Amino acid sequence: MSNSSIQVADRVSAPDLAAPHVPLNRRRLIAPGPVEVEPRVLAELAQPQMHHRAPEGVAKLIQVRAQLSELLEAPGYEAVIVTGSGTAAFEGALVSLVPGNARVVSAQAGKFSERWGEMARHFGYDTQLVSKPWGELLDPQEVADAAADAHTLLVTHSETSTGALHDLAAIAQAAKAQNPDLIVIADCITSYGVAELRPGEWGIDAVVSGSQKGTATPPGLGLLLLSPSAQERLIPGTPRGFYLDMHRELKGQMSGNTPQTPAINLIYALSASLERLLSVPREVLWAEKKRQNDALLAAGVGVGCRAWASRASPAVAVLCPPAGIGGRAVAAQLAQMGQRALPGQAPHEDTVFRISTMGYTDRYDALGIAGILEDAFTALGADFERGAGVVAAAWAALG
Amino acid sequence: MSNSSIQVADRVSAPDLAAPHVPLNRRRLIAPGPVEVEPRVLAELAQPQMHHRAPEGVAKLIQVRAQLSELLEAPGYEAVIVTGSGTAAFEGALVSLVPGNARVVSAQAGKFSERWGEMARHFGYDTQLVSKPWGELLDPQEVADAAADAHTLLVTHSETSTGALHDLAAIAQAAKAQNPDLIVIADCITSYGVAELRPGEWGIDAVVSGSQKGTATPPGLGLLLLSPSAQERLIPGTPRGFYLDMHRELKGQMSGNTPQTPAINLIYALSASLERLLSVPREVLWAEKKRQNDALLAAGVGVGCRAWASRASPAVAVLCPPAGIGGRAVAAQLAQMGQRALPGQAPHEDTVFRISTMGYTDRYDALGIAGILEDAFTALGADFERGAGVVAAAWAALG
Repeated sequence: MSNSSIQVADRVSAPDLAAPHVPLNRRRLIAPGPVEVEPRVLAELAQPQMHHRAPEGVAKLIQVRAQLSELLEAPGYEAVIVTGSGTAAFEGALVSLVPGNARVVSAQAGKFSERWGEMARHFGYDTQLVSKPWGELLDPQEVADAAADAHTLLVTHSETSTGALHDLAAIAQAAKAQNPDLIVIADCITSYGVAELRPGEWGIDAVVSGSQKGTATPPGLGLLLLSPSAQERLIPGTPRGFYLDMHRELKGQMSGNTPQTPAINLIYALSASLERLLSVPREVLWAEKKRQNDALLAAGVGVGCRAWASRASPAVAVLCPPAGIGGRAVAAQLAQMGQRALPGQAPHEDTVFRISTMGYTDRYDALGIAGILEDAFTALGADFERGAGVVAAAWAALG
Repeated sequence: MSNSSIQVADRVSAPDLAAPHVPLNRRRLIAPGPVEVEPRVLAELAQPQMHHRAPEGVAKLIQVRAQLSELLEAPGYEAVIVTGSGTAAFEGALVSLVPGNARVVSAQAGKFSERWGEMARHFGYDTQLVSKPWGELLDPQEVADAAADAHTLLVTHSETSTGALHDLAAIAQAAKAQNPDLIVIADCITSYGVAELRPGEWGIDAVVSGSQKGTATPPGLGLLLLSPSAQERLIPGTPRGFYLDMHRELKGQMSGNTPQTPAINLIYALSASLERLLSVPREVLWAEKKRQNDALLAAGVGVGCRAWASRASPAVAVLCPPAGIGGRAVAAQLAQMGQRALPGQAPHEDTVFRISTMGYTDRYDALGIAGILEDAFTALGADFERGAGVVAAAWAALG
C-alpha cells in the first residue's frame, strides 16, 4: 500500500444547512438502549401467541437460560430471567442475597451506580458509598478497602451515564482478596455481551443486565446470572420482595417454569438474538463492539468533541461537545435528523451527548453515524474540518 | 475551513482477512431491486387482511393512484396499477396501445431494453431495433430517425443492467419533433421516483415502473402512468391480452375498482411508502438519490473499479472491477459478508457488479456501503489505498 495521503478538506464543502433531504433519512436508534433490533428478532414477537406453560414455552425458557450462561462462559453460573427492567433484576439480586442490616458498599461514579446505593439505603441496609465524580474511574484499592468487612459490594462495570468502563476485574479481585466472603453484585447492564466480562475469574457473584442492551432485544426482561456460591446463599422467602424473590425464581426456572407470568414473546425474541451473538467466539464479539464504539468516539473527536471517560466502555460513546454547544442541543439536532440519541443525564444533561452501536448495528453503520455527526455539528455551527469525522471513524472501524 | 490534509493510508491497515466478525454484520439489501423497505411500510402488509371491495380498499386505490400521479407531477396523467411485475405493466402498455401489425421501434443498449424488442416481436409487431452496445448511450437523433414513421417507440430511461441513464428527454423530444403522432412507451422502471423525469414536457405517453424500485415497496405491482392522449388511444378489448387490458383496467381503476383481484396489501404498503417520497419536493428526492449513487460510484472508483456508463443512472452503481476480479466474485464476496448485491446480467455477469441505494437507504448508509466495498475488495486481493473508498464516498455524500 502506498503512503500517499488523501486530501479531504479541500474537496468536501459545507452542506446545505436547510437540509431539505432530512425527511428522506433512514430513522436510526443510536441511543445506549433500547437499541436497534434485528428484524428476525422482532418477528419472533409476532408469532401466534405462545404460552409459557406449553411444552414449547417451557423448552424455550430452558434454552434461553442456557444461551445466557453460554454467552457468559462461566461454568456453574445459572440465569434467572425477570420480567421487568435491569433495575428489577438488580433489586432481585440485592434483596435475595443480602440479609437485613448487613453492611453494603456501593461504589459509584455516575447515574446508574448511584441508583444502587439509593436502592440499598431504601431497603435499610447499612450502606457505605465510595464515590468518584462522574466521568472518573473508581479506584480498585479504595473500593476494596471500603468493602473489607462488608457483606456485599455493589459495583457498576459499564457506567452508561458517563461512558466509563470501570476495571471490574481489578475491583472485584482486590475486594475478594481482602474479604473472600464478600458478595459482589455487578451492574453489567451495558457490558454483558458487549465488553470483556469474565465473572468466574474475576469473582463476580451476580451479573445483572437487561434485554434492551447488548442482547439487542426489546426492553422488558431483566437478566441475572448467579455464581454457584451466590445460588447457595440466596435467601429463601426474602422479606424484602415477593415478585423479585430470586430464590423462588431460580428454583422454578431451573425446570423451565416461572412462578409468575413471564413476557414469553420477549423470551422467544431474546433467544433468537442470542443465537446471533453466540455465532462467534465472545472475544470476536467484544472486539467488534469495541471497534464500533471506537469509531463513534473517533468521529466525535473528528468533529470537535472529546470523550468524557478515560477508559471508554464499548457500549456507549459519551462525548463532550465543543464549547458553546450543549448535549441537549446535539440530541435535539440528531432527533431533527431522524436519529434517536440521548443527551447526558441530570445534572449533566448539557455536559455530554450519548450515542451507541450496542445493538443490531455493525462497523459499517458506524461510518454512517460518523457522517450523521458531521452534518449535525455543521448544522450546529461547530468549527471542524469537514470529512475529519468520517475519516477518523474509518481508521477505527476498518483499520 | 482549513486546507490541511488528513493522512489516510498510513493510519488504516489491512483488516483481518479471516473476518471472524462477519456473522455480526447487519444484513443489507444493496441490489438494484428489490430494495430495502421501511419497517413502517412492511407493517402495512401485516394489517388484518384488507378487502379491495370494501370502502377503505376502494378509497386506498384511489389515494395511491393520486399519489403516483403526484410523484410524476404531470397534469392529466392517470395511473394504472397492475398486480404483476414491471414487465407486466410494460406488456399492458404495449398490447393496449399498439394495434396489430403496427411498426414499433425498440431502442436498446442493455438487458432490459432488449426485452422490450423481444416482447414486441413476440406479439408480431413490425419491430425495428436501434441498438448500441451495453454500457453505451443511445443516440437521440439515430433513435428519432428510426422512429420517423413508426407507430410506437419503446425506450428505456435507466438501464439497470448497465447503469446508463439514457437521455430520455432528448430522445423523446427529437422523435416527437419528427413524428408528432408517435407513442413513446418509456421503461422508467428504475428512474420513476429516482431520476429527473418530466414526461409532460418530454412527450412520454406511457411511463412504466415497478413497486420494488424507487417506490421502495416489496415486488408485486407494476405501475403504468398514461398521458391524456395515451388514455384516448387505448385499444378497447385488445386481442393481445385479457389480464393486461389497460383500457378496461383504467376504466375500473378511475372509480377505485380493479377488474381482477389486486395485491391489496401491497397497495397499502405502496401508499405508505409514497407518503415519504412525497414529503419533499421531487427535485430534492432526485438530488438525494443522485448524491447517494454518486457516493457508491466514488467508493467503487476508490477501491479500483470504474463506472461502466458515462452518464450514470442514480438508481444503480454498475462498476467494472479491476483486472482479475469478476463481477460474480464480487457479488459472492458481498453475499458472504451478508450484503446482497448483484453481478452483471448475461452475457456480462463477470464484466460488472451492481449495487444500489434506490430504496429506504440514505446518504449515511452510502458511507457504510463504501466501508463494505473496502473490506470486500481487500478480501478479494485488490490493490488500492485503504480508506480511499470511504473518503471518496464522503466527498460525494456529504459534500
